Amino acid sequence: MEETSCIKTLLINVVFSIIGFILTMKLIPGLKHMFIKANLYGIDMSKTSREKVPEAQGVICGAIYLIVMFVFIPIPFLDHLATRDTLQFPFHEYVEFLAALLSICCMIFLGFADDVMDLKWRHKLLLPTIASLPLLMVYFVTFDLTEIIVPKPLRGVLGYSLDIGLLYYLYMGMLAVFCTNAINIVAGINGIEAGQGLVIGLSVIAFNIMELGGNFREAHLFSLYFLLPYVGVCSALLYHNWYPSGVFVGDTFCYFSGMTFAVVAILGHFSKTMLLFFIPQVFNFILSTPQLFRFVPCPRHRLPRFDPQSDTLRPSMARFKSSEVSLLGRIILRVFSLFRLIELKENEGEDGKFIECTNMTIINLALRILGPTHEQRLTFILLMLQVFCSVLALFIRYPLARLVYERLQ
Amino acid sequence: MEETSCIKTLLINVVFSIIGFILTMKLIPGLKHMFIKANLYGIDMSKTSREKVPEAQGVICGAIYLIVMFVFIPIPFLDHLATRDTLQFPFHEYVEFLAALLSICCMIFLGFADDVMDLKWRHKLLLPTIASLPLLMVYFVTFDLTEIIVPKPLRGVLGYSLDIGLLYYLYMGMLAVFCTNAINIVAGINGIEAGQGLVIGLSVIAFNIMELGGNFREAHLFSLYFLLPYVGVCSALLYHNWYPSGVFVGDTFCYFSGMTFAVVAILGHFSKTMLLFFIPQVFNFILSTPQLFRFVPCPRHRLPRFDPQSDTLRPSMARFKSSEVSLLGRIILRVFSLFRLIELKENEGEDGKFIECTNMTIINLALRILGPTHEQRLTFILLMLQVFCSVLALFIRYPLARLVYERLQ
Repeated sequence: MEETSCIKTLLINVVFSIIGFILTMKLIPGLKHMFIKANLYGIDMSKTSREKVPEAQGVICGAIYLIVMFVFIPIPFLDHLATRDTLQFPFHEYVEFLAALLSICCMIFLGFADDVMDLKWRHKLLLPTIASLPLLMVYFVTFDLTEIIVPKPLRGVLGYSLDIGLLYYLYMGMLAVFCTNAINIVAGINGIEAGQGLVIGLSVIAFNIMELGGNFREAHLFSLYFLLPYVGVCSALLYHNWYPSGVFVGDTFCYFSGMTFAVVAILGHFSKTMLLFFIPQVFNFILSTPQLFRFVPCPRHRLPRFDPQSDTLRPSMARFKSSEVSLLGRIILRVFSLFRLIELKENEGEDGKFIECTNMTIINLALRILGPTHEQRLTFILLMLQVFCSVLALFIRYPLARLVYERLQ
Repeated sequence: MEETSCIKTLLINVVFSIIGFILTMKLIPGLKHMFIKANLYGIDMSKTSREKVPEAQGVICGAIYLIVMFVFIPIPFLDHLATRDTLQFPFHEYVEFLAALLSICCMIFLGFADDVMDLKWRHKLLLPTIASLPLLMVYFVTFDLTEIIVPKPLRGVLGYSLDIGLLYYLYMGMLAVFCTNAINIVAGINGIEAGQGLVIGLSVIAFNIMELGGNFREAHLFSLYFLLPYVGVCSALLYHNWYPSGVFVGDTFCYFSGMTFAVVAILGHFSKTMLLFFIPQVFNFILSTPQLFRFVPCPRHRLPRFDPQSDTLRPSMARFKSSEVSLLGRIILRVFSLFRLIELKENEGEDGKFIECTNMTIINLALRILGPTHEQRLTFILLMLQVFCSVLALFIRYPLARLVYERLQ
């Protein structure tokens, strides 16, 4: 696309994003009663009030996002549409838009179904994989780049680049599953999900803008078209979800966000950079692994414990019998405790030995380090950490990467 | 595509449709408790038992349909994918698949949201229109045929063909809205929604097969790829929804079905023929207009009245004050009564004159003609009417059309 027409398209996209922001701002309070009436509400466990808080508000975000994108789609193709130059029509670009929206739409639907019906874990892993199939097929027919550039120190052994073929598709499929679940497991305090989404979204936008002058300009433009409206609806949601939350975001929002990030990363060829912006989520995922994969017993909820007296949060504990833990579980507990990632207590109960440990999430870890903390302050600190990690990511991506690569793919 | 590879693709599609059928057969009873737990159930008003019947089961159909289609998508393109002949890749065909699935996925999502939250009428009209935008854009860039062939008797005035331009797009957008709502308003007795879907689906498949030898072979193949799996999941749903219903289909199913039909009709260039298969729905829509547009007061439910003594259904009545009806409403009531479409009674109540009339749906009309009828028999008769109309449609489409056209577009 030409310089001017591309700036024009970007400006229209910004206007659409603002419209998305305004619509979300208005519709969230407007539809509140509809959600409560439909039994879609929760009680905030970290408040003294037992008010009904509408759940699954990500569905409003997601629906407005889809509407905005549907109306926006023709804009980048206006030149071709105006001249009715259909023979020259860039189908390979249009196909990317449609595949991306299809994957995102599927995830919003899946997330909403999860909020309404509490899906099983196998659905949560299987369905995002299937939803990313059309996307991977687009990747296959438009790029099919499955080579990875080998870092300098290893080139003596592996050569300059390595074609990992099918493994690369597996990696991209897993990226979609990872992104959709990663935000979802850093959850449980007001504003944290929407906050993460906003920080990651803005970070990727900054990265895309820095890359607009580079070789992959079209890919980064594409990413901007998708992320600016995302940031629009996400900010409005954060406004309503900020402490004290008037609404909860639900799984819908986490799935919607995760898939949006996965989509732009895959079609924009910057999946490795995208993962850098997910450092806190990757860390949280690794930290959670023993509980998620049941090496160590996992309680139903792992959100921090609320102390109404001091209006602060403390780390929540999991308590289980020593005999319930396998040898591997025991080793993990020791190692985590050694690195001070968890607090570990062993004591003798009435019917045998018991183990108590703080739940393995980044939120509980932060509370272990900070001591009892007010909910709003905790969210703020965790989001600042996310911002810090984004800066770190850009540092790794630019100056540091030059040490091991000529340029990062 | 070549003859053999096209037959192979069609056979694979049939296998996928059977898998879809089996999965739906198994999952509907399997997930029953999940729906009831999530408060998604209804009570069958035409039974003496007050058992909880899971609602919105169209969402299971729809989800399985999407999964089957996602896995199927690469098959028609296997030749191109195998040779990695990406320069020659038929993007314009792939784009049709994605746009179609995007519109269908949006409608399943919207239908489910409607089942969970009871959306307002303005949403039900606005959202399908927006969901069909990507589809219309695909139509614009791949075909942009907006000419209609003028019937012979009018050619003296209008010429051979008439380019109605933008109006044609408006018509297609309205087709999507019509189809998604048309099935939804012929509802309320066991098996009627899924039954309609099945009969229309099979009729269109028959039509597609007849046209496979013609000029628009690709378009009819495309339609078959979408409709065979639809018929697969729809039959399984009908099995569980047949009298006495173990499950209800919900708005989700009606929206899903409607959009699937609209999509294949638009991209297959047979929207007028498709409307012929909707004759009972068009008739029901016209009959319902006075109540839907509130020229005559409309009660919340218009389903037939159940008589537990005789285990039969009778037409349900709307009762309202004479003063509530405008002059136009009065005229409509007279005309409908004159043509024996409704039963009209006027009587003097305690506080003024009252009007009673049977509710304006094809189901109540059938009951008016048939007299008290058992629910299963009523569904069967209405579905036979649908079959008869399909035969009529094919008669209009083939022998009759030759009288006014050389060939129908």
